[in-house]
Amino acid sequence: MSGIAEVARRAGVSKSTASRALGGTGYVSDDTRLRVEAAAAEIGYVPSTNAVSLATGKTQNIGVVMPYLNRWFFAEVLEGIQEILLERGLDLTLYDAKPASPGRARIFGDFLARSRFDGLIAVGLEPDHHELEQLVRIGRPVVSVVGSGDATSIVEIDDDYAARRATDHLIALGHRRIAFLGGQTDRHWAQVDRRRFGGYEAAMQDAGLADSVRHIESDVTLPGGYAAAVDALSDTRNRCTAVVASCDEVAIGAIIAARRLGVQVPGQLSVIGIDDHEYAEMFSLTTLRQSPREQGRVAVDMLLAQIADPDEPRTAVRMKAKLIVRSSTAAIDPRVSATVIDGGLDIPSAAGA
Amino acid sequence: MSGIAEVARRAGVSKSTASRALGGTGYVSDDTRLRVEAAAAEIGYVPSTNAVSLATGKTQNIGVVMPYLNRWFFAEVLEGIQEILLERGLDLTLYDAKPASPGRARIFGDFLARSRFDGLIAVGLEPDHHELEQLVRIGRPVVSVVGSGDATSIVEIDDDYAARRATDHLIALGHRRIAFLGGQTDRHWAQVDRRRFGGYEAAMQDAGLADSVRHIESDVTLPGGYAAAVDALSDTRNRCTAVVASCDEVAIGAIIAARRLGVQVPGQLSVIGIDDHEYAEMFSLTTLRQSPREQGRVAVDMLLAQIADPDEPRTAVRMKAKLIVRSSTAAIDPRVSATVIDGGLDIPSAAGA
Repeated sequence: MSGIAEVARRAGVSKSTASRALGGTGYVSDDTRLRVEAAAAEIGYVPSTNAVSLATGKTQNIGVVMPYLNRWFFAEVLEGIQEILLERGLDLTLYDAKPASPGRARIFGDFLARSRFDGLIAVGLEPDHHELEQLVRIGRPVVSVVGSGDATSIVEIDDDYAARRATDHLIALGHRRIAFLGGQTDRHWAQVDRRRFGGYEAAMQDAGLADSVRHIESDVTLPGGYAAAVDALSDTRNRCTAVVASCDEVAIGAIIAARRLGVQVPGQLSVIGIDDHEYAEMFSLTTLRQSPREQGRVAVDMLLAQIADPDEPRTAVRMKAKLIVRSSTAAIDPRVSATVIDGGLDIPSAAGA
Repeated sequence: MSGIAEVARRAGVSKSTASRALGGTGYVSDDTRLRVEAAAAEIGYVPSTNAVSLATGKTQNIGVVMPYLNRWFFAEVLEGIQEILLERGLDLTLYDAKPASPGRARIFGDFLARSRFDGLIAVGLEPDHHELEQLVRIGRPVVSVVGSGDATSIVEIDDDYAARRATDHLIALGHRRIAFLGGQTDRHWAQVDRRRFGGYEAAMQDAGLADSVRHIESDVTLPGGYAAAVDALSDTRNRCTAVVASCDEVAIGAIIAARRLGVQVPGQLSVIGIDDHEYAEMFSLTTLRQSPREQGRVAVDMLLAQIADPDEPRTAVRMKAKLIVRSSTAAIDPRVSATVIDGGLDIPSAAGA
């Protein structure tokens, strides 16, 4: 006797329970799982997953498709997903689907159709109509992290709430000339950034500040926020006293720009972000905290529930970001708000401190 | 007639050529591959890869194991790998093996032993002796990107050269009090950081500056470089005039620290990094440029060659990083070098510009 039968005997469970415990799918108590794993380790048994896969239709593999790998939010979500999959003994197959890239067309055309996974997590994917059809056609459970509309189960933060809360914080500090920084209306304007701009706009309107609504456009990256803020802050006649950034990377870019131009943060400019990025503490950034890692973990739980029971209803989890006040925001200095600032700024050419 | 036979007929090739072309492994000319892919697309044929896998032992899947997902270098390598795999129709299964984590033990114990891949790329993994044995035991080709010793084929930059070149640049500008920033000798000191420190040390010795060798320890991250630099630069009696950082993230942290403390870069402090990180331009950072993305692409090519021909000899590709001079480095100001600096610095408590 060898293989799974021997593992089952040593662990004192049935063969099917031993299979479930090692397969990572289907319910097994933690205690049983540990016993079965220990028995498997004793005899050096490793399940032959390809054979299992053909027999049961389960690949023990979860697909993850995302448009960026090298941004904080996406890397954090991926780490959260990976963490749970490792615990459950499941593989993670990654698809990098940059917007409007040839690779993306291949992923939707070939890779997803091949369906070498039991379910799919789509992170910030924002599929177009055709892509959404392709997603549905693969006939596997799909969970989205951030914005694929109502077609799938979804985990995300309430973006409208986060941006309103950020804007209200600045209004409560006495700011009136508050700009929104980030996103480009004439290029790829992600739904998440549009929703955040919408939340800012609504908060401004509610406070009777509709006339002060201003969108400073930028790439939604740290260098993007920096470049746009250098430009906007250099216009001393028309300078805002506070900025709601579409995310922390953009906010940090704005703080670096302000320091470069000699604009005091928060003395002359308050900056607030959304994220609680790993650099936020270092820049004393006031922000609305979300946990992308937690969103990744929750997405896996939702997906495994759907794989176990395909009749599981679609669900939407919208988390509330939490205001973390650090010292990049402060009550407006009455001297700053009352007059037009005339700074005499040097626009940096390239170098230096 | 349907399936692969029909694809082969339409493309005018044999069934085995059509299989190879769609499988992404084994040699097929680009021209043939395109014809076969077009034929497959015409009839909507998608290869059933699980069946293929059992029949041929080829999973059409490449494993990638790396200790971090959320750092620039690793994300860039991963994008380079993904790019080529997408072109070749191969899946990427990702394993996140943080140093000394329980997940890492599971990856080496279970996941790699399951071998649901035709070959493995290990990125910055630095396996210990036991892990290296496990890697060898899986019996699949392995290519390393950065540092797993001589046990596998490898792609990396020549770290010794990069650090020497960086140090020599500062010496040529007249600097003598040059510190190396980054890495922690009493904690996990990565081989790559040790090699870079070694290159710095050798260049200092060659210039007769052995007495000035100084290692400012820090986490190899942007906030790590920032915190260590705030501390080191605040000691005005013992301040260096130049810093070789172990990578750009650490270098940028040091520049941000200098700005915060009112230390002029490059007037009072020259800073050089290694990477050419996406933020390097924004901080006018002089650096030694490497391309992790290119390293990822080369690693895939090497791995596919080994999969196609297991007798392919192990190879080592060591790229030379290229000096990119921006304005974070400058010739030393004789007034600064001649005297001990007495700055009267404010150490920042938390906030502001």
